[in-house]
Amino acid sequence: MSAPKKVVLAYSGGLDTSIILKWLQTEYGCEVVTFTADLGQGEELEPARKKAEMLGIKPENIFIEDVREEFVRDFVFPMFRANAVYEGLYLLGTSIARPLISKRLVEIAEATGADAVAHGATGKGNDQVRFELAAYALNPDIKVIAPWREWDLTSRTKLLEFAEAHQIPVAKDKRGEAPFSVDANLLHTSSEGKVLEDPAQEAPDYVYQRTVHPEEAPDTPEYIEIGFEKGDAVSINGEAMSPATILTELNEYGRKHGIGRLDLVEGRFVGMKSRGIYETPGGTILLEAHRGIESITMDRGAMHLKDQLMPQYAELIYNGFWYSPEREMLQAAIDKSQEFVSGTVRVKLYKGLASTVGRWSDNSLYSEAHVTFEEDAGAYDQKDAAGFIQLNALRLKLLAARERRIKK
Amino acid sequence: MSAPKKVVLAYSGGLDTSIILKWLQTEYGCEVVTFTADLGQGEELEPARKKAEMLGIKPENIFIEDVREEFVRDFVFPMFRANAVYEGLYLLGTSIARPLISKRLVEIAEATGADAVAHGATGKGNDQVRFELAAYALNPDIKVIAPWREWDLTSRTKLLEFAEAHQIPVAKDKRGEAPFSVDANLLHTSSEGKVLEDPAQEAPDYVYQRTVHPEEAPDTPEYIEIGFEKGDAVSINGEAMSPATILTELNEYGRKHGIGRLDLVEGRFVGMKSRGIYETPGGTILLEAHRGIESITMDRGAMHLKDQLMPQYAELIYNGFWYSPEREMLQAAIDKSQEFVSGTVRVKLYKGLASTVGRWSDNSLYSEAHVTFEEDAGAYDQKDAAGFIQLNALRLKLLAARERRIKK
Amino acid sequence: MSAPKKVVLAYSGGLDTSIILKWLQTEYGCEVVTFTADLGQGEELEPARKKAEMLGIKPENIFIEDVREEFVRDFVFPMFRANAVYEGLYLLGTSIARPLISKRLVEIAEATGADAVAHGATGKGNDQVRFELAAYALNPDIKVIAPWREWDLTSRTKLLEFAEAHQIPVAKDKRGEAPFSVDANLLHTSSEGKVLEDPAQEAPDYVYQRTVHPEEAPDTPEYIEIGFEKGDAVSINGEAMSPATILTELNEYGRKHGIGRLDLVEGRFVGMKSRGIYETPGGTILLEAHRGIESITMDRGAMHLKDQLMPQYAELIYNGFWYSPEREMLQAAIDKSQEFVSGTVRVKLYKGLASTVGRWSDNSLYSEAHVTFEEDAGAYDQKDAAGFIQLNALRLKLLAARERRIKK
Amino acid sequence: MSAPKKVVLAYSGGLDTSIILKWLQTEYGCEVVTFTADLGQGEELEPARKKAEMLGIKPENIFIEDVREEFVRDFVFPMFRANAVYEGLYLLGTSIARPLISKRLVEIAEATGADAVAHGATGKGNDQVRFELAAYALNPDIKVIAPWREWDLTSRTKLLEFAEAHQIPVAKDKRGEAPFSVDANLLHTSSEGKVLEDPAQEAPDYVYQRTVHPEEAPDTPEYIEIGFEKGDAVSINGEAMSPATILTELNEYGRKHGIGRLDLVEGRFVGMKSRGIYETPGGTILLEAHRGIESITMDRGAMHLKDQLMPQYAELIYNGFWYSPEREMLQAAIDKSQEFVSGTVRVKLYKGLASTVGRWSDNSLYSEAHVTFEEDAGAYDQKDAAGFIQLNALRLKLLAARERRIKK
Repeated sequence: MSAPKKVVLAYSGGLDTSIILKWLQTEYGCEVVTFTADLGQGEELEPARKKAEMLGIKPENIFIEDVREEFVRDFVFPMFRANAVYEGLYLLGTSIARPLISKRLVEIAEATGADAVAHGATGKGNDQVRFELAAYALNPDIKVIAPWREWDLTSRTKLLEFAEAHQIPVAKDKRGEAPFSVDANLLHTSSEGKVLEDPAQEAPDYVYQRTVHPEEAPDTPEYIEIGFEKGDAVSINGEAMSPATILTELNEYGRKHGIGRLDLVEGRFVGMKSRGIYETPGGTILLEAHRGIESITMDRGAMHLKDQLMPQYAELIYNGFWYSPEREMLQAAIDKSQEFVSGTVRVKLYKGLASTVGRWSDNSLYSEAHVTFEEDAGAYDQKDAAGFIQLNALRLKLLAARERRIKK
Repeated sequence: MSAPKKVVLAYSGGLDTSIILKWLQTEYGCEVVTFTADLGQGEELEPARKKAEMLGIKPENIFIEDVREEFVRDFVFPMFRANAVYEGLYLLGTSIARPLISKRLVEIAEATGADAVAHGATGKGNDQVRFELAAYALNPDIKVIAPWREWDLTSRTKLLEFAEAHQIPVAKDKRGEAPFSVDANLLHTSSEGKVLEDPAQEAPDYVYQRTVHPEEAPDTPEYIEIGFEKGDAVSINGEAMSPATILTELNEYGRKHGIGRLDLVEGRFVGMKSRGIYETPGGTILLEAHRGIESITMDRGAMHLKDQLMPQYAELIYNGFWYSPEREMLQAAIDKSQEFVSGTVRVKLYKGLASTVGRWSDNSLYSEAHVTFEEDAGAYDQKDAAGFIQLNALRLKLLAARERRIKK
Repeated sequence: MSAPKKVVLAYSGGLDTSIILKWLQTEYGCEVVTFTADLGQGEELEPARKKAEMLGIKPENIFIEDVREEFVRDFVFPMFRANAVYEGLYLLGTSIARPLISKRLVEIAEATGADAVAHGATGKGNDQVRFELAAYALNPDIKVIAPWREWDLTSRTKLLEFAEAHQIPVAKDKRGEAPFSVDANLLHTSSEGKVLEDPAQEAPDYVYQRTVHPEEAPDTPEYIEIGFEKGDAVSINGEAMSPATILTELNEYGRKHGIGRLDLVEGRFVGMKSRGIYETPGGTILLEAHRGIESITMDRGAMHLKDQLMPQYAELIYNGFWYSPEREMLQAAIDKSQEFVSGTVRVKLYKGLASTVGRWSDNSLYSEAHVTFEEDAGAYDQKDAAGFIQLNALRLKLLAARERRIKK
Repeated sequence: MSAPKKVVLAYSGGLDTSIILKWLQTEYGCEVVTFTADLGQGEELEPARKKAEMLGIKPENIFIEDVREEFVRDFVFPMFRANAVYEGLYLLGTSIARPLISKRLVEIAEATGADAVAHGATGKGNDQVRFELAAYALNPDIKVIAPWREWDLTSRTKLLEFAEAHQIPVAKDKRGEAPFSVDANLLHTSSEGKVLEDPAQEAPDYVYQRTVHPEEAPDTPEYIEIGFEKGDAVSINGEAMSPATILTELNEYGRKHGIGRLDLVEGRFVGMKSRGIYETPGGTILLEAHRGIESITMDRGAMHLKDQLMPQYAELIYNGFWYSPEREMLQAAIDKSQEFVSGTVRVKLYKGLASTVGRWSDNSLYSEAHVTFEEDAGAYDQKDAAGFIQLNALRLKLLAARERRIKK
């Protein structure tokens, strides 16, 4: 790979990406463009601008954007249509944010004439894969620079020395090492590393930052009603809201009731297992409610196929293949299944639990006439069941007859 | 179908199956054998013997058996190895009990020279299918009698008249109709029908019989440690127990902490949707813990394949195909995956939530050396990730290049 | 089911459906509407009109339609996009025609105010299921009449007596029983029953009607080039043609070269196994060519997902679930995968074999630069493979290390 | 990676692996052990011994083994139980040989105290991945050396110079470059590269080495009968044979009749597409016959599940994951399905085509009594089909009713 001339860096404004910024300038002598996105991580973005300017980035090379609506509308919601969970439990909060960041990095590179993009993910994790696969899938000629895989700043000490040598300000609380590493966006907060590295030990209370402890949540349940249109949440308690607003609101409900905590050991795409603490307050409520509205509006055949496809869909997102033809194929199937997934779900929130307790829809397939224990006025002829069972049983009978024949 | 001469009836001792017993005698003039199983439903069995005798069944034709250990060991545990849930949520508590009952019905029929078996399931539900597919799969020549699909006792009034006409005692509280219908065994209690038929309405509190309300559960979390061997639970808090004992214990923990409630609308195999309230206290804890022990002992490749196969496996059980070659094929794959799933999981129980908070095992695949944020002494070469990403990206790059080429 | 007042009958003009026509009139006293479709079965349709008139059908109640283009465009081609084969071998020629017939039956019923449709499929086969599921999926209130399941004309003798009693002319060659039963349309001809019922015996030569014997096919291979657009064939040897024309042409090529014969024992949806002889001359060439064009235009990820989904897709079509949400979901995924499947395939035809020998496309993903054994000018860095392998191996190494650790 | 001390090399005796042998000695100064396997590639092995001795390998370090029986019994046959084909067509002849070679390399390394193994696969292909993943899965501490990825002998000229410099004899016909590259074993011969690199061009006749041209095959068909036990071929025309003998015989039949040629463009695991010419004469007959015996002895439910799992199974083998837990899980499911797959298949061989024309078995599930068009003596009640269809249709009717309700 020839040396990059102009690099778009995914820049948070924090110490690590500031060091990367400076390292790119010094290592490659290249122009740096910064991209700082508000994905709902809950941090001010303007300080990042100031810091970038201070590090010598030209104003026209500083890109700061609020992408929360795009994030929820084009990434989070499509994924939730699938009820995607990785390894049975993880709601993919980090995974789903990476393709959007890469998309903007590549777009900004094309707009500014940059030939490379750079990110601050390490060489051990999944995020490097997600950033880079997405970038290459969107621009096959882009260069991707992953300083953590390249440089020799392999210890905290060396990093701080580099920072000092290049006049990068280091906040006092960053002098020592953080007890764990955090990633956050509107969908979730994840924590991993350091104090969490022994999976036998319960995570310390202070790791959780996004939700109150269930024990400290209100003693009285709260009920909310979530409205859906074609598989996406569109309202809370009857009030229509934009995608990002809904997720923000659900996060607040989830935070308050201690909902959406997960302590997981997972298999990384790069081959080892890692342990993470995830907090997905709003997403956890949303998944429950989405299952609820599907339960009355989606046919069994469609639902079972969807459930069967989900693990591969989740794996693709986890592994960084959002921009792949097979993810798009699965998305087409999933989206097709959501045409009638509209209606309202009533969810009970209480000390860590989000439970569907009611659901209704103009599109409901639930037919009290068919299912009732009472007289059904001919909606269903119980005698049909005899033939249904006989023909379903026929192949099993032939198998059993063979077994008896052979045994003799 | 020619008339049966001798019928083995799945007999609970309750009013409905007593009416069936008498109806079989009067309708077909056939000898009746009763089979009453203790599956952990929490009822005394001896009254069933008395009642059968009173209805004229010969003592040698009365079979009363405690099958709880067989139920958990040979049905519940194999199913939990798969983390089986139907439509994302239902733990299959009723479905998994039916094959065992059919197996014993067929065995008793063969032992007593009976040519038929009979059950008390209605023509609208899944249970008729499960009973009958299992019976036919085990004996292709057996006759199965499903009185609810045959007789004209189509109203409560007619049933009670029949009971009266045949001196079947009717308990006072059975004169009126039950507000909902219940099925129970060691794994779960399900409730459906009548007051539950409007899926928009929250289920009344009195429907729940197996668990305390989360709001009334202890205010302090409780921790337990569940030991596993090859995918099956073998101990609680270090004390070894038999399968049925473990599930009984876990049920008590779950009951106390309000764990395992589910309000679900599901797609029945016979075609309509129904709404059920399920309580699976011990099973819910067990599923969480099993996921926990798998997370450190099972390889990602195996786990993802298993997750992908699970929905079909669960559907097979739900639909009554326990005794089918495809269920056995999936079981072979699932059992193969459990060889190393041994170790201990620590679970926190609190107001409806069962959460894994720690897990350890001699078979752990978790390698702190590989995953650590600290120096890893060469366990992992971050530079490998570059090649890994490049080759995973290659096909995506070729796709992107094509897209650009065509657009031009 | 109340008696039908007006019935639309799938009418071939042959003896059996003529008897059904008359039986509907006499059994139900209902008005009969006939629908005769040209699906490419190779028979004149006008005689069916004459015969219907003779049997008392009013002219406005006789519908005769050429649906060949619709058949190929909307049913055959979408199915071939999936490379659908049932049980590894069967190209679904009968299965795919049934939904179209049912669709027109239901549409004509709605147009003529009929409350029922009728078909001539027996109670043992798959076709009854396919006709009826399609009809119910398109009109939930339609009645479907399947005379073969209802009447007592259970022997050849009784059928002929009924025909005679009702002045239905019986061709001389129909007096005796046919040695096997045939279904034909533009995609295939199937033969089953009677002389074919022993699956150990080779099918007699005279069963094959659609293709020459490979032994009698030309001794010289013939080459053709098939053009594709988005997964569908659009030209032969550079000449653009309509869907039905292409399939007709390919049938002629296949017939001449003895291509597309299949002797199969298959599992029917209704539970038993049956043996069929299928001739799918054009379809067999088309499948080969479609695989050929996909091989250079479709990404590996997309193709492998598609291959994995195919068996369920084929099963759905075979079982009669063309009009089901899960088939439509799969179709959405499959169609998505075909966006770039355009180009040309060269196929060699010779004595029963159709073999792809060349393929090219503007959308080709094949990159000689990457794959060449020669110098590749940096298109591919072989060193990347080392990292790729290391990270793919990591989890296997961790597994192997565990195995060694435990064994000690 | 520290330098290897003793390396076991997969050694063919040819020029390329002789250069590797010498390069390992000179580059690493390490002791070399050679392993030459008879996998049925059709070459004498003793010359390899002579050549190894001449290149300075100690006699006790030269391993020459006939592994044909193990190859067919433990690798080829288990794979054929699955009817495995990659991307719809490729019978995986190269892929399935690699794990066996790696297994012996690792075992010999352990027996001789070697710390590394080496292979002659290039950095662009799948074989490097297969060799190495298998080696690491069997010994996590083994070093694997892939000279083609490491050295600078990047042109034919340099290779020949190196050979000359090190007194490696170069056969005259190896002075020029081969027009394509070949891999062969008992299952297949593959050819790729050079003259085959344009996928639009038909492969020249001289590429095919293992089969006669169909045009030159006998003008008269030949019939053979293949016997199976539990899914594996055990006899031809009634004569019992060992696995390798059977495959050898089938190869001869296939060769003679021009069976098993394939011209394929396939997606490599390393990301690019390549074009190969495969000849799998015996395997092609075996696949056809195995499908044939399954068709009467395997239940539909089992078969459809197996068909659905097959593409992932084939992909795992193609990608080099033979020794992975997920392949073993799938194998457990597949092997379970083969318990009753015993019997005989009659296959017609003619000018490139192998066609099943008859099959019989004591385990047959085919029931003429059920399927017959004649009177079936009550084996099947056609009226059952009505109920079967009604309940299968119920969910489709509910969907259709919703659609009509909404449209209004």
